[in-house]
Amino acid sequence: MNAVITEEGIFSENIELHNRGGYGRKEKSKLILSFEEAVYLLEKGRIEVFEGERPLSREELFLRASKTIKDFEIKYAVYRDLRERGYCVQSGIADFRLYPRGGKPGKTPSEYIVLVISERRSIPLEELVEKLEICRRIKKKLILAIVDEETDITYYEAKWVDLKGETSELSDERFQGYLLNDRVIFWEEGASEILHRRYFFGELVNSTLYISLVEAVYLMSKGLLTLQDADGREISEEELIRRGRELEENFDEKFEVYRDLRDKRMVVKTGFKFGAHFRVYEKVESIEELYHSKYLVHVIRRDHVFYPQELSRAVRLAHGVRKSMVFAFGNGERRYIEIRRVRL
Amino acid sequence: MNAVITEEGIFSENIELHNRGGYGRKEKSKLILSFEEAVYLLEKGRIEVFEGERPLSREELFLRASKTIKDFEIKYAVYRDLRERGYCVQSGIADFRLYPRGGKPGKTPSEYIVLVISERRSIPLEELVEKLEICRRIKKKLILAIVDEETDITYYEAKWVDLKGETSELSDERFQGYLLNDRVIFWEEGASEILHRRYFFGELVNSTLYISLVEAVYLMSKGLLTLQDADGREISEEELIRRGRELEENFDEKFEVYRDLRDKRMVVKTGFKFGAHFRVYEKVESIEELYHSKYLVHVIRRDHVFYPQELSRAVRLAHGVRKSMVFAFGNGERRYIEIRRVRL
Repeated sequence: MNAVITEEGIFSENIELHNRGGYGRKEKSKLILSFEEAVYLLEKGRIEVFEGERPLSREELFLRASKTIKDFEIKYAVYRDLRERGYCVQSGIADFRLYPRGGKPGKTPSEYIVLVISERRSIPLEELVEKLEICRRIKKKLILAIVDEETDITYYEAKWVDLKGETSELSDERFQGYLLNDRVIFWEEGASEILHRRYFFGELVNSTLYISLVEAVYLMSKGLLTLQDADGREISEEELIRRGRELEENFDEKFEVYRDLRDKRMVVKTGFKFGAHFRVYEKVESIEELYHSKYLVHVIRRDHVFYPQELSRAVRLAHGVRKSMVFAFGNGERRYIEIRRVRL
Repeated sequence: MNAVITEEGIFSENIELHNRGGYGRKEKSKLILSFEEAVYLLEKGRIEVFEGERPLSREELFLRASKTIKDFEIKYAVYRDLRERGYCVQSGIADFRLYPRGGKPGKTPSEYIVLVISERRSIPLEELVEKLEICRRIKKKLILAIVDEETDITYYEAKWVDLKGETSELSDERFQGYLLNDRVIFWEEGASEILHRRYFFGELVNSTLYISLVEAVYLMSKGLLTLQDADGREISEEELIRRGRELEENFDEKFEVYRDLRDKRMVVKTGFKFGAHFRVYEKVESIEELYHSKYLVHVIRRDHVFYPQELSRAVRLAHGVRKSMVFAFGNGERRYIEIRRVRL
């Protein structure tokens, strides 16, 4: 039942803690316990931790751990929560390994890597990508455990996702539109019929078709659209892109994602009402069926830094409307990360 | 049935358009029509617009308007939408005045000022405050009509809101806590009993009470809390505030709002799960009843600039959980703006 704490760590000779509960790492005939494990087992009354002759109280051990381990308070909160949910958890340096229910270290492979993140800490996209790459290599799922101010924990799974659709490819009809300020307008019937009803571009407002700048740049890049301004002057693709850049900070990034998704034959519409750049459909049969999109896609830059609050807001909103939240970025190659809340 | 367009504007002699439909401004025996009104009436086949001998087509008039009026495309979209919903709308320079259903200029006072905003345009808080002040002075409600890329329109009402609660005032018990990294922890029973169960501070995780830094600063500022770190060293209020500033960018602003709301006897808890700084309760009977907060409060700086997308995301999320979205700011005097989606 006992453990000892020394300069080198916390040791126990009770190997059963490992064999039955998956606690500690075995080293010869001893067990090395992490601080999370020791505080938890002490709290549960399953061990006492002696320093020399004297047993430490839970508070003393907790304070000792806080001095030794960065962010121990929140790491412990997550460790404890996962244990209480019946998972076997192995403490690493920066994170935890989580075993599937009923699994144990040495018996089953771990299923998840759990990163513990304080609500206050930001997560650079670079860091998330790096963790996702590690997880892909070692075939684990990645869980972000975000701990809020009240030490309440929300779990998110982050994963790479491939987006591919089944919309029919564009035909080679050409159209003539007007660029008026920040949108492109068509009055001709054919544009509404084909661009809107067949390929789901833009929105029809009383027989006038309005399409967005990214849609217009896409159509121009395919050679399917010519544009003029209110004075009848022709607008080139370069000029349209310049206009886009003036109007939107990340126009290029946004357009690249739009193009990639359209080229992958998805239908892409504005996600404004849902606070994201795009809502994305895998397949649309007819414009009347454009009622439920599968994904919300938000475009971020390669140097983006996530704030847990922003993440929480976006994911919660997406789930509230039964959509998956996807963040898109990249230069050249497009990459998509889906983040969803999970109940462990 | 006819109108003429000249350098000076669009004129009609059909006074009935004004008397019956509230179109145009009367000037002597003539009616001056705005471009929105003229395009709309032309589209509806109720007038023809002549330039000299020649009637203009809808497209010609629309393009002429686009050249003359900034953002005409989206202003017209909103004008048209409001008219189609049966409202009488008067065109101003930067906005519209909206009459209650059945009301007309000259007969009833207008009820709303409608600001038309492109999804792409940002709205500085200063500008919103200025408009709200004008509206307060002239006793109108303020509507933001946000037009997305697809020319779909969402209406929001913005208004000043007073927040006042009915929680009992703090008693003068004093507590001793530990500052561990970014949170304050109590192991003594009394703290859990009184701070948590009676005054709803923090969160209880297995008989350990965790409170946030803003809560701790508040209690210290009232002289009700002393703190030590893991080494037993005493922490002053100034040091705690410094820690807060290190950890959070807008700690001071956030604390000032927290203090104001607590002083107004509301219960204030983290709003992390909802992507806002705080969730706020007017009245809480017992900690078990802490299930539905009325408001989500997000703290912004005086120089904040709203992006329509951010606004849309926050308000939609708040409504999804049946809460009101409130933005808080100020220096010295706290001010609260509630923004909610309205269906006109």
